[in-house]
Amino acid sequence: MKTHRVSPSRKIRLAKIDTTGTPGFKGDKAAGEARVARLADRLNALQDLMFAEGKQRLLVVLQAMDTGGKDGTVRSVFARVGQQGARVANFKAPTSTELAHDYLWRVHSEVPGRGEIVIFNRSHYEDVLVVRVHEFVPKEVWRRRYDQINAFERMLAEEGTTIVKFFLHISREEQKERLEARLAEPDKRWKFNPGDLKERERWGDYMTAYEDVLNKTSTPWAPWYVVPADRKWYRDLVVAETLVETLERLGMKYPQPDWDPTSIKVPA
Amino acid sequence: MKTHRVSPSRKIRLAKIDTTGTPGFKGDKAAGEARVARLADRLNALQDLMFAEGKQRLLVVLQAMDTGGKDGTVRSVFARVGQQGARVANFKAPTSTELAHDYLWRVHSEVPGRGEIVIFNRSHYEDVLVVRVHEFVPKEVWRRRYDQINAFERMLAEEGTTIVKFFLHISREEQKERLEARLAEPDKRWKFNPGDLKERERWGDYMTAYEDVLNKTSTPWAPWYVVPADRKWYRDLVVAETLVETLERLGMKYPQPDWDPTSIKVPA
Repeated sequence: MKTHRVSPSRKIRLAKIDTTGTPGFKGDKAAGEARVARLADRLNALQDLMFAEGKQRLLVVLQAMDTGGKDGTVRSVFARVGQQGARVANFKAPTSTELAHDYLWRVHSEVPGRGEIVIFNRSHYEDVLVVRVHEFVPKEVWRRRYDQINAFERMLAEEGTTIVKFFLHISREEQKERLEARLAEPDKRWKFNPGDLKERERWGDYMTAYEDVLNKTSTPWAPWYVVPADRKWYRDLVVAETLVETLERLGMKYPQPDWDPTSIKVPA
Repeated sequence: MKTHRVSPSRKIRLAKIDTTGTPGFKGDKAAGEARVARLADRLNALQDLMFAEGKQRLLVVLQAMDTGGKDGTVRSVFARVGQQGARVANFKAPTSTELAHDYLWRVHSEVPGRGEIVIFNRSHYEDVLVVRVHEFVPKEVWRRRYDQINAFERMLAEEGTTIVKFFLHISREEQKERLEARLAEPDKRWKFNPGDLKERERWGDYMTAYEDVLNKTSTPWAPWYVVPADRKWYRDLVVAETLVETLERLGMKYPQPDWDPTSIKVPA
């Protein structure tokens, strides 16, 4: 899965990445889904271990264009972990209270504690994406945010938080199909917002903004992964595999009690 | 499932309830589990509808003795709903900041917003359970809390929150088996706390405290259900069925767009 990791030393160009590709996996869709299911079980076991050990914190950042599959990824990858094992923090348009603070304020309050997994559905990266594309703040303000974000994430990492960031990369054509599917199904129509089409018109601006994000903020302590996401099963596979590998590298252990388990008798 | 609902007009005695019973269901364990899986799917569909409609709020309160199965219930019943569809609020021993406020303060901040499902894993009821049993506050303080809680929940209900409360009722013998199972498995041992045995000694006091809770705070706007919980599949079945029935009674509808879906064309 390292093939998807953005190296700080080599600039990436999103247009050159095949959003329908499945590099590193030879199986078909059914084999991919079966593998995701096994990885979801493994992730569940690792979450249990992480909670039991109570030392590590895991922060997963999900970013994507509209219809890019953030919700679906959470559903598949964390299917076996459950609500008690992982929490989603959604960052929508900021409230007036949030806007009254710096842009990292609302984000900081949601980072994981010991033993916790938190998934950011959108994140502080919106403050250099939608905010930049729509010029909600002047250029000199958003330009210095890359360094601010790197410093913030570095602090989190140095204090014990493992950070993994995914950009779910779909093509413009795939988005068209997904938006049309929403319009076609009466029970999905509520997800469609005519305003989404305005954002779609700015596709090129968003790709430029994402490229800057990926090239400026993929660090050794908080790497970005660009996930080819037109095929949902492959998207889920990359995210699940990356998280399992990341957690396995932490060398976690179940804590040993400081009392002798055989000495304890539960009275009737 | 109405058989498990605590009527405000008829006092219940916990000792008279068979914790191994499966009233209202004729099938065996396998049939029960299959039904829970179907109900979990239905609950997922209802959550989608609830979020889409954006009007209702659902608050689920789970209370139980230690090992009573609160975590397992969340895992089974909300298995298909996912982290985005339902959130768990855990209420552990209060922090010093929480203790500096009234006991409903930390609880109020976690209640669901429109379209949201929130599950309370423990709740404000601990303030008339553990707090009463251990006399953390004088009797005159905890005694007036039943009325305070009823008034608080009535306000929530009148403002649009549906409240359903479950007491997962296990026997003292079943707890012994579950504690012993935790001790026996190395990967489960961390869940065992020698202090749990001290609470177990107070079983009778807890049952008295639970009976008062059930008899004083099962209201038309926030009913309690006593769930026979020695059999995990039956426990899950009662909770899932009750939630599905409750949500189906709300008569929710997918919102209709105020624009004509056929008039919208997604540009290339």
